[in-house]
Amino acid sequence: MPVNKEQLEEIEALRSEISETARVTAPELEAVLYKPIEVLDHGFIRVIDYMGDDSSIVQSARVSYGKGTKKISNDKGLIKYLMRHRHSTPFEMCEIKFHIKLPIFIARQWIRHRTANVNEYSARYSILDKEFYIPSAENLAAQSAINNQGRGDALTDDEASNVIQILKKDAEQTYSNYETLLNESSEGNIIDESKSGIARELARMNLTLNTYTQWYWKIDLNNLLHFLALRADDHAQYEIRVYADAMLDIVKKWVPLTYEAFEDYRIGGTELSAKEVNLMRKLLKGEKVSFEEEGLSKREWSELQRKFEIS
Amino acid sequence: MPVNKEQLEEIEALRSEISETARVTAPELEAVLYKPIEVLDHGFIRVIDYMGDDSSIVQSARVSYGKGTKKISNDKGLIKYLMRHRHSTPFEMCEIKFHIKLPIFIARQWIRHRTANVNEYSARYSILDKEFYIPSAENLAAQSAINNQGRGDALTDDEASNVIQILKKDAEQTYSNYETLLNESSEGNIIDESKSGIARELARMNLTLNTYTQWYWKIDLNNLLHFLALRADDHAQYEIRVYADAMLDIVKKWVPLTYEAFEDYRIGGTELSAKEVNLMRKLLKGEKVSFEEEGLSKREWSELQRKFEIS
Amino acid sequence: MPVNKEQLEEIEALRSEISETARVTAPELEAVLYKPIEVLDHGFIRVIDYMGDDSSIVQSARVSYGKGTKKISNDKGLIKYLMRHRHSTPFEMCEIKFHIKLPIFIARQWIRHRTANVNEYSARYSILDKEFYIPSAENLAAQSAINNQGRGDALTDDEASNVIQILKKDAEQTYSNYETLLNESSEGNIIDESKSGIARELARMNLTLNTYTQWYWKIDLNNLLHFLALRADDHAQYEIRVYADAMLDIVKKWVPLTYEAFEDYRIGGTELSAKEVNLMRKLLKGEKVSFEEEGLSKREWSELQRKFEIS
Amino acid sequence: MPVNKEQLEEIEALRSEISETARVTAPELEAVLYKPIEVLDHGFIRVIDYMGDDSSIVQSARVSYGKGTKKISNDKGLIKYLMRHRHSTPFEMCEIKFHIKLPIFIARQWIRHRTANVNEYSARYSILDKEFYIPSAENLAAQSAINNQGRGDALTDDEASNVIQILKKDAEQTYSNYETLLNESSEGNIIDESKSGIARELARMNLTLNTYTQWYWKIDLNNLLHFLALRADDHAQYEIRVYADAMLDIVKKWVPLTYEAFEDYRIGGTELSAKEVNLMRKLLKGEKVSFEEEGLSKREWSELQRKFEIS
Repeated sequence: MPVNKEQLEEIEALRSEISETARVTAPELEAVLYKPIEVLDHGFIRVIDYMGDDSSIVQSARVSYGKGTKKISNDKGLIKYLMRHRHSTPFEMCEIKFHIKLPIFIARQWIRHRTANVNEYSARYSILDKEFYIPSAENLAAQSAINNQGRGDALTDDEASNVIQILKKDAEQTYSNYETLLNESSEGNIIDESKSGIARELARMNLTLNTYTQWYWKIDLNNLLHFLALRADDHAQYEIRVYADAMLDIVKKWVPLTYEAFEDYRIGGTELSAKEVNLMRKLLKGEKVSFEEEGLSKREWSELQRKFEIS
Repeated sequence: MPVNKEQLEEIEALRSEISETARVTAPELEAVLYKPIEVLDHGFIRVIDYMGDDSSIVQSARVSYGKGTKKISNDKGLIKYLMRHRHSTPFEMCEIKFHIKLPIFIARQWIRHRTANVNEYSARYSILDKEFYIPSAENLAAQSAINNQGRGDALTDDEASNVIQILKKDAEQTYSNYETLLNESSEGNIIDESKSGIARELARMNLTLNTYTQWYWKIDLNNLLHFLALRADDHAQYEIRVYADAMLDIVKKWVPLTYEAFEDYRIGGTELSAKEVNLMRKLLKGEKVSFEEEGLSKREWSELQRKFEIS
Repeated sequence: MPVNKEQLEEIEALRSEISETARVTAPELEAVLYKPIEVLDHGFIRVIDYMGDDSSIVQSARVSYGKGTKKISNDKGLIKYLMRHRHSTPFEMCEIKFHIKLPIFIARQWIRHRTANVNEYSARYSILDKEFYIPSAENLAAQSAINNQGRGDALTDDEASNVIQILKKDAEQTYSNYETLLNESSEGNIIDESKSGIARELARMNLTLNTYTQWYWKIDLNNLLHFLALRADDHAQYEIRVYADAMLDIVKKWVPLTYEAFEDYRIGGTELSAKEVNLMRKLLKGEKVSFEEEGLSKREWSELQRKFEIS
Repeated sequence: MPVNKEQLEEIEALRSEISETARVTAPELEAVLYKPIEVLDHGFIRVIDYMGDDSSIVQSARVSYGKGTKKISNDKGLIKYLMRHRHSTPFEMCEIKFHIKLPIFIARQWIRHRTANVNEYSARYSILDKEFYIPSAENLAAQSAINNQGRGDALTDDEASNVIQILKKDAEQTYSNYETLLNESSEGNIIDESKSGIARELARMNLTLNTYTQWYWKIDLNNLLHFLALRADDHAQYEIRVYADAMLDIVKKWVPLTYEAFEDYRIGGTELSAKEVNLMRKLLKGEKVSFEEEGLSKREWSELQRKFEIS
């Protein structure tokens, strides 16, 4: 279990400290505040703090006092309008802070999103826990033959079990040698009194990339949605997509109107090039079209066919 | 008064809507939430929302669970340490949102701070209010003879009154012509039914730079402190400094430990060049020094003398 | 003319200082380097410096050594692929620096794009030139009846001429009073020896928003394209669109392959929501559709009809 | 050697392609353009492109035409003034692009600097080279007893050799298993025709953190100097400091006036708190001081003593 008994008690303590506030609150998000949602084998994600709700977006879009007399139907329409026309600044008026535990190779993808605030556990300062991500057999797959950065067919049971064994053995051995290099066990005991060990900032280089790290990650809603559009997508690596999926649920609890508009205009939406628009016009008029003549590549054409169920 | 009766009623309504939250709260900030603090003749600043407090900074610096057992003295020491060594990321974990009304020429300075979220009143969409900043007589001053971008001596009463008259007259005339160009009064009445007027996005160009605008402005604590270090400084223009001073009071209510450290290490602190450090070493050893030989300019030397009360 | 004789001589001097470089160069852009392109009545835009070309984007996308053996057709295909899938980081590897002269009310729109570097002429430090934007008669238009932030019908000749007269008169009078407030003419002469005038940082507030300012503005290609997608669009205000149009020409000279992909996938492209995709599928199958049943608003439906020429 | 023969030939080819440009050039930087500077055992850093020089900073600070008639002594004075007063925007007008090869655990520190553009070698797409950072014996050190994130005493020869052996062995074994997991050797040969191997995006998790990666990294001069102030500092980890040192040399070649001011005001300079300024004033007047009474911590006092050679 990613969270131990002591940590759960602390979480319960935090959750029971209720204060009064004149700020807007998101009741459904309050219901899960601080609570870890388990992701992968040892990871989690939990909301630590947030600011604003759907009404904050509306308020900023109107740059007017309070939320006053406007009805929910208007708020919903305005949020849809903002999402549709990519008027992004009002969505920047909401902010959320997560505590996330994740494998280092996923942290490396994640951090490429620059418009966020981060405080990561420092392995210069402290010893990393003995926890590595080992994929389950059903999440092991061969390199995709068609997509240079994706997965293809699942492995046979035998091959999968062999893979898992290698990953486990190497992670355990390198971690054990990490302790040897530090001359200190993960529990904080000196291993050999006659030796000094090497600095933590050096010893960490012996760990494998599936070792877990953790960080606080704070981001505004607009940038979070951008992150989710990319990372909850089919093309994202499975191991980051599961975090993105958990965050989508959180967004739904936090700003339900925004979530609905996001689903419609971003997640389920699509983009067409000028040439594709042109081709579609002809199709809709019942004309015969040739994708080559319209300037589309074979790949663009087959993607268009699939998207719009064109036979 | 910058805020009218209707707006005050809305503010009271918002202030009376108290919710429960498991988030950290800053009670002193709650006490002023939504309330406008008057700045200049028609401006104001008010806090609309916030996230985090001193404990959030400490929490992120420790990247650990909860705030648990740590005593306040430890928190204070840690915050001082972070401020002193410019470990800025933990201060990014707090966020605040203001509603600000300010003259356009000040808004133009303000917006140069890029790491903030902004939603400004749109004069493409709506008609700007008939409100201009007219300085009080004691805030009028001649161009500084020594500082190319500052103020020097105060004006005589006669000259001041003349200046104020010009500013008022021009602002009123250009605003009146703004209404003529729009063919619509600021109250929303058509002026001449036989005319069409020009688009708002065009008419606004006739207004003077002391016309008031307003915006929602959201920023993290680290960037806010950077803004305040520059804008609450003696060298900042008076008309932006008064907003910065009001914000300093807000920071004090919000994150008192951070405020104290900021006062000591930033506002009251100073920087020395390598050459100045060298010169100071000699002075402290009782050696005779010549600023020219140490490579300081005359200006640097006189600033150093003033700062350290060197005769 | 926005650029005087002395400035033209300086530009010629800069253009004649040819150096050798091992960096990539964009010959078509070199041909216009430093040269002002006139925009509006007194504005201009000119390229001061640039870094990279189409091959730099390709190089970063491949993260490999040099550009070596790849053929132009491959580069073109790769750039199209990057643009289509919004793989934006390679486009960040090119940078451009402009010198721009523009009216203040347009500068205020422009500066909302935060991911750029800016150095603006300081009216705290120096006196602004006596130059204001006065629209030509054909660019004057009434407020749009359907679009809250746009223009509608053109004015009658009489009304247009009246508008221009007001704008001119107010700009000239407030500028003349600006000089009086400074007690200094725009040529730098003291007006009245017995007076002191007020500081420049104060006097500027009397100027109207159509006064010209100027700045150096540096931005990477990815953010520039984002700026252009918004500001070269039909919905952008005419007075900023003319600058965007001039920049589009510059982009075409600088990175022709990127320009071509941008035209196809962004400028001429479109976005569809999940609901619109669904509706389109039915249309393509020859089914009868009702936009209400599909969940589209009347406005969305009429926009879709226009875009795809659906009757 | 970090760069192979083929790559050196490509570099020579690039270096020999000389173009003419009207842009400013930095001749000393041209002399090293594209050339790899070796760092650590397999790493390097090389300049791929740049924009601007010292005169670009001056030009933007003056927001005026060209560099015209100003003498170098003035430029030097202006750059010193800008550096001293942290007027940072003119330094943003220069840009540089590096190609860097570095161990992953250092890349993880590096990427925390968010205001840069990055394209990293993708291990989802391609197989990482078989290259790991193994520290030399003299760079191995024990954990510091006084600094939680630093190094203390050097190791004995025996312990050092043991450490190196562990690092080598684990890196080689995990890399060899990386090939097994991929079912493909680093040279691109299938290992076992009967197996499929797992996707690259998965296999990479078995690699250790000292594996080398590489990226293009582009940044403006202002942010680069900020990076260097932190990473060329004594408190920075040795393995990132060597890259920072190499970049300092590059900055010196590129913008020598800026480099000189940076050395004086940043690298060799220091900051004092309000309390330290107060204490210094008393010392300079020959008064007796007690650091406790002045509100300094013991640590602050001893650092002050060391910095100013106070006995």
